[in-house]
Amino acid sequence: MNENVKINRGLKGIYFERCGVSDIDGAKGELSYRGYSIHDLATSSTFEEVCYLLIHGELPSQDALTAFDAKLKAARVLPDPIVGIIRACKDGHPMDVLRTAVSALAALEPDSQTCGEDAFVENGIRLISQVPMIIATHEAVRNGRDPVPADPTLSHAANWLWMLKGERPTEDAARLADVDFILHAEHGANASSFAARVTIGTETNLHGGIVTALSTLAGPAHGGAAEDVMKMVHEIGRPENAAAYVKAKRGAREAVTGFGHRVYRKEDPRARHMREGVRKLGEEMGAPEWYEILQAVVEAMKPYSRHGLNVNVDFYSGVIYQLHGIPMDLYVPIFAIGRMPGWIIQCVEQQRQNILIRPLTLYNGPEPRPYRPMKDR
Amino acid sequence: MNENVKINRGLKGIYFERCGVSDIDGAKGELSYRGYSIHDLATSSTFEEVCYLLIHGELPSQDALTAFDAKLKAARVLPDPIVGIIRACKDGHPMDVLRTAVSALAALEPDSQTCGEDAFVENGIRLISQVPMIIATHEAVRNGRDPVPADPTLSHAANWLWMLKGERPTEDAARLADVDFILHAEHGANASSFAARVTIGTETNLHGGIVTALSTLAGPAHGGAAEDVMKMVHEIGRPENAAAYVKAKRGAREAVTGFGHRVYRKEDPRARHMREGVRKLGEEMGAPEWYEILQAVVEAMKPYSRHGLNVNVDFYSGVIYQLHGIPMDLYVPIFAIGRMPGWIIQCVEQQRQNILIRPLTLYNGPEPRPYRPMKDR
Repeated sequence: MNENVKINRGLKGIYFERCGVSDIDGAKGELSYRGYSIHDLATSSTFEEVCYLLIHGELPSQDALTAFDAKLKAARVLPDPIVGIIRACKDGHPMDVLRTAVSALAALEPDSQTCGEDAFVENGIRLISQVPMIIATHEAVRNGRDPVPADPTLSHAANWLWMLKGERPTEDAARLADVDFILHAEHGANASSFAARVTIGTETNLHGGIVTALSTLAGPAHGGAAEDVMKMVHEIGRPENAAAYVKAKRGAREAVTGFGHRVYRKEDPRARHMREGVRKLGEEMGAPEWYEILQAVVEAMKPYSRHGLNVNVDFYSGVIYQLHGIPMDLYVPIFAIGRMPGWIIQCVEQQRQNILIRPLTLYNGPEPRPYRPMKDR
Repeated sequence: MNENVKINRGLKGIYFERCGVSDIDGAKGELSYRGYSIHDLATSSTFEEVCYLLIHGELPSQDALTAFDAKLKAARVLPDPIVGIIRACKDGHPMDVLRTAVSALAALEPDSQTCGEDAFVENGIRLISQVPMIIATHEAVRNGRDPVPADPTLSHAANWLWMLKGERPTEDAARLADVDFILHAEHGANASSFAARVTIGTETNLHGGIVTALSTLAGPAHGGAAEDVMKMVHEIGRPENAAAYVKAKRGAREAVTGFGHRVYRKEDPRARHMREGVRKLGEEMGAPEWYEILQAVVEAMKPYSRHGLNVNVDFYSGVIYQLHGIPMDLYVPIFAIGRMPGWIIQCVEQQRQNILIRPLTLYNGPEPRPYRPMKDR
């Protein structure tokens, strides 16, 4: 009797909710936040403005932005026990350490248990500042250095680079990180945001939703693309090897990493901004070969691109991080810094009109059978 | 053009996968694990056997059970840094502390990053033992006591009570905890198991899936029913007040807690075993009034039960915990101890035939609009 039930594997094409935060047109290759094209935001806006836009729905006035920025800066301090917890698990993967610290913040911060829109927004703004601090603190601790204190004169992106490396970033480097965060800030019902919504659907607090999002982003099929591309670039080694590499991969029916996306059928609109960043940064730093390898891979993939195999946003970002000397296991945590406002607004929207998200599995196990006591087994 | 898209809010009635672990017949009020009725398992089996059954598909032979039990017992020790982390956030909610410690285990245990079925099962068996130890250690630490070391001569349930309270449980008390864990062990695509599957769908490791499950269980609409029922029982105070309480609630169109379930239209089949436990335990301990209050609420709810408003499993469990002197904020963590094998096998099944779980939201936000520079806002 169960033969006629439709199974929607991966929930592909299933709409579970309405949401007015970001609009993805996969066929046209377009992405907008609250009606503003990602291209305008990437060229004209800052991450702080985009956080405000995503959370509050409109671009901020100067006064609103100043107040919002003051809240972000006020949260640039970690409770002492968090630093102790980071030290206790410093040899773990940075995503595990980040998730553990965010989970512990739920236990340590007095208003973390409060639900409702205002509490979600206030806790969320704090978490936007705390997440990059946790990552930078972990990077310092695991390298035997003292954590670098936050600098309230710096922007979110510049302060992150300052705390990570202990030296002032150039304006270009800070802007590139800023654009990276803007491009990663929100992307509809992606797996981590959707998982966070399932968690919030049980009426839990914001920290619970963000912990779930971090768990989910950690998977190679979600946040791991930048790291995988960087490994591929190292494997290819030189631009002239790219064609043979692609041919071998496609011949073995294996995926070439950094291409394709569940939603986009044209090029991921976020990719072009990172491509330009890689080109420029590589030139400036006297290391143009990374860009050349990537472009040789794109060229070699062209025969396959009519099936929608275009580069996605993370095809270029790994090389940018590499040029900045950032270790590969921080690539996913950097994605998390950018995605924070998206996760927060998705959690806010879920709790606003809440419903338990609980689909079904179709049973295909043994028929009912009598219990077998131990002596009969 | 978007008007004709169907929105499946809460994914109600949507099948996303086949699964042969547990079968829920909501209309008949039946539940089975791997073909065995929950009633047979609750009366004849042990939690260790049920763990084996859920994970491996069959009830164990004596030799298989001995080997499985030896693995569980070998894992009854927490790494030192975990105890330090529990101390660092000891004043938090036990679910936040539990989730933080499990997340930290991912950073501390050498094989936690390995994926695949064998790794999931080995990590899972360890986590089945670690979860109750974390809860008991936290309970000791927050009350200024030294953690009680595990006792390898005791069963999973008896060892949990021993570590929690520092005294040997009676056989009846240990059996009641055992049955409680059996009844909570697995329940299809419930919100926490489903969220864990979304996390595993990105190809992350088992710890990530379990952390997500813990985040999701923490919500009052999922794991919080036992605590809510206990609060209701205290509010009602005496059996003769129950009818007026229910009438007032229903008159105000508010839900009476502990009734109703997304899946069951008849009585939750797990409820009867907990009901019998409450009755017996209350009598033995000279506190029959709790049972009487609960039954008076059931009686008062009868006029509404034709709409499927029957008691669910957590209607009775809170009173059992109360009679054992267990603090209310440990009710959800106890649910987690029981649900561990279910989460583990759901994660195993998800990674076996993996696919990214990524549904869609329908955009209902602003139309495309030109960027407004700061001077124009």
